[in-house]
Amino acid sequence: MKPMPTNNKPRPRVVIVGAGFAGLTAARRIARLPVQLTVVDRKNHHTFQPLLYQVATAGLSPGEIAAPIRWILRGCSNVKVLLDEVVDFNLEQNKVITKEQVLDYDFLIIASGATHAYFGHPDWEPLAPGLKTIEDALEIRRRVLLAFELAERQNERPNKTADGQSESPLQFVVIGGGPTGVELAGTLAEIARHAMNHEFRNIDPRQTRILLIEGSPRVLGSYSEELSRKAEAQLRRLGVEVRTSHVVTRIEPGAVWVGGERIPAPVVLWAAGVAASPLGLKLAVAVDRAGRVLVQPDLSISGHPEVFVVGDLAALQDENDGNGKILPGVAPVAIQQGNWVAQTIGRDLENQPRRNFRYHDKGSLATIGRAAAVAQFGKFELSGYFAWLAWLFVHILFLIGFRNRLLVMIQWAWSYLTYERGARLITGSDELPGCTQPQPHPEKDGAAEPTVPAGQPRA
Amino acid sequence: MKPMPTNNKPRPRVVIVGAGFAGLTAARRIARLPVQLTVVDRKNHHTFQPLLYQVATAGLSPGEIAAPIRWILRGCSNVKVLLDEVVDFNLEQNKVITKEQVLDYDFLIIASGATHAYFGHPDWEPLAPGLKTIEDALEIRRRVLLAFELAERQNERPNKTADGQSESPLQFVVIGGGPTGVELAGTLAEIARHAMNHEFRNIDPRQTRILLIEGSPRVLGSYSEELSRKAEAQLRRLGVEVRTSHVVTRIEPGAVWVGGERIPAPVVLWAAGVAASPLGLKLAVAVDRAGRVLVQPDLSISGHPEVFVVGDLAALQDENDGNGKILPGVAPVAIQQGNWVAQTIGRDLENQPRRNFRYHDKGSLATIGRAAAVAQFGKFELSGYFAWLAWLFVHILFLIGFRNRLLVMIQWAWSYLTYERGARLITGSDELPGCTQPQPHPEKDGAAEPTVPAGQPRA
Repeated sequence: MKPMPTNNKPRPRVVIVGAGFAGLTAARRIARLPVQLTVVDRKNHHTFQPLLYQVATAGLSPGEIAAPIRWILRGCSNVKVLLDEVVDFNLEQNKVITKEQVLDYDFLIIASGATHAYFGHPDWEPLAPGLKTIEDALEIRRRVLLAFELAERQNERPNKTADGQSESPLQFVVIGGGPTGVELAGTLAEIARHAMNHEFRNIDPRQTRILLIEGSPRVLGSYSEELSRKAEAQLRRLGVEVRTSHVVTRIEPGAVWVGGERIPAPVVLWAAGVAASPLGLKLAVAVDRAGRVLVQPDLSISGHPEVFVVGDLAALQDENDGNGKILPGVAPVAIQQGNWVAQTIGRDLENQPRRNFRYHDKGSLATIGRAAAVAQFGKFELSGYFAWLAWLFVHILFLIGFRNRLLVMIQWAWSYLTYERGARLITGSDELPGCTQPQPHPEKDGAAEPTVPAGQPRA
Repeated sequence: MKPMPTNNKPRPRVVIVGAGFAGLTAARRIARLPVQLTVVDRKNHHTFQPLLYQVATAGLSPGEIAAPIRWILRGCSNVKVLLDEVVDFNLEQNKVITKEQVLDYDFLIIASGATHAYFGHPDWEPLAPGLKTIEDALEIRRRVLLAFELAERQNERPNKTADGQSESPLQFVVIGGGPTGVELAGTLAEIARHAMNHEFRNIDPRQTRILLIEGSPRVLGSYSEELSRKAEAQLRRLGVEVRTSHVVTRIEPGAVWVGGERIPAPVVLWAAGVAASPLGLKLAVAVDRAGRVLVQPDLSISGHPEVFVVGDLAALQDENDGNGKILPGVAPVAIQQGNWVAQTIGRDLENQPRRNFRYHDKGSLATIGRAAAVAQFGKFELSGYFAWLAWLFVHILFLIGFRNRLLVMIQWAWSYLTYERGARLITGSDELPGCTQPQPHPEKDGAAEPTVPAGQPRA
């Protein structure tokens, strides 16, 4: 980057809202421009979302897939990082309004991403947590591990469960057959078959029921029909029941309903719907049905060329696609858009004309479980072990920071060789929604207890 | 262990309450006896407590110092692990009453440890968290890291803090100068001086005030006066203010009071008092002032030779000490007692007479910070770098499980070489007690905002 002519004037102020893939990529590149950059995020850390499911399934620790934003950007003295929550914008006066203060900008990049959508059923959220943040992942981990513990405890005295057979906690339902749902279901199956072997005395973890429910006719709908078919076969081989073309109509504590059928499900995980960050609605520009902001071809918003929206919050037609399909909310799109906006601001500062963003699809990868994955690179498709190796390579390569990469590699090598999972801690509460079946209390109920067998040694 | 004569009878049932050092050590050894063993714990994991302060100070992740109890005991087919909370005992009928069920025993080992004591001020607990569990450590980590973030945010517009200078969040008070308090204060100083260098723009983390308050005349009171003096000198060198012979009389949000003096303290950590687990009071035997159970010389309780109390919950006079000093609540005592009880049960099964427990003091180690520690092996004393190496060696050696040991070594090598800390994630709420100073809101208050400087590039 050559020196700017504006060196003696105050540097233009750039504000980035959100340090996910899009925001962080933009920040790293914009830091090299002669600007003052402020990055605002509600969290102090960037999360490597493609590996969140590994935290949710106890394979990795949170610290291995997340790093403090200010640590990542520590080398850039013109970058400030603020832990704060943006609540509104004043685009006419170039202001970002956070919970705690007001920030001025000359360029604004909004990359606040997406959250879970429960299709008008916000009451489902506590019953079926989704997977977007470290906190989500830890909550899912807690529920999954707790189910095995409750099953072991409940079967300590199986003859004592008096009124009717109580339902086993070992029934997991994953709602949504996209990449996250497939990863979760596949990994849960792996845990049940292998990771907990020989650790329980009252239950057989391999009896765990794992059900994946998808509303459309096939899992991994964004892949080819052939790969969807293969993914479904790999899931079944791992022991996952797959029900496509089924829609969940109700979730209650301990069960989901598919049409008229009640399916017992002490643990329900949500991987079905995504809604754009509500900040998109504060911009007074058009949004699509999912709340994504319809951006200009240069990723700015209508009437405000100094305001950009990138990543999962942006809705932009794929120029490579004749049918006007919207670019998917995946990391490669976010990264390319973050880079593009950084370049655009650089061109603006040099008074060069803007150009339109164009997505370069380098392929997609989805993992299913141990040594199982699918990959699509244009016309070239791959599945099984080699797709899994490709997935592993790409994901370790893109992990932020050398330390994390090394630790993750060790964890994975360990898990692969031993079938064990390294982060199986239950922290927080020990209750599951729908798993609070009151156990009859033999002492209180006056039930006869087995007495100490005669002939026992007594000191 | 030679084969038992009772092989054809039902095996004696042993119940262990608590899987800390004492309970887990007993469990591993008792598993080799011809008994049925049940281990009950409120958590699914054993926590390596000597390294908890590393989690609290973002050096290690929880998964690196904790491992599932049932994973540790997976090889022992005569051992059951139950996640459950013991609430009472019926010693006459040999029953352990948990929240969910009733367990019968022939031998009972109570190793439920200790918790924080706030000396009759339970309202101090939310203001000054102690450090006993993984959850505690994560809460402390959250508060410590958040203080730096709030300071950076608060100083974004220092001119805007209208009514009076608001207090800096970067004031940490550690109450209690025992090993935990010294470790916490030393490590906090290390973080402030080194780990966060070059990451903040509005604050200088090295300005952080760290105050260690100890009621008695010296820190590390269980060590020699010489070592106490050296430890205090090492703390001061790291930048910790040490106040001995000072007692905290009041804690309020954002401050502690020492006598008549109010000391601003947005983050207060409690390392002062320990109280035995309340289960000790359910035994109807004598307890000492701290609630510890007065045990017989063989670690059983009066009138019930089949019931043992070990670890931090037990009060036993040190036979090596003429003054009748009670054995301290440290890991080596717990481990030796756990082993002793296992042996005693083995002897009972073989109808051999019991023997009295005797503690073998192999020395004590306390770490202070980077390359700073003190060690006492009988008359032999060590401080500084070599004491720290000894501490490092002993602690890595005793970590449960090869995987953890390897990961911890990598983390430490990394931290040592780079001064960085690997687990600096803030999860959970973003509020500190006493740090909710309402910031004047320039938009709402109508304060003049700096306008966009003229001559700024606009796209």
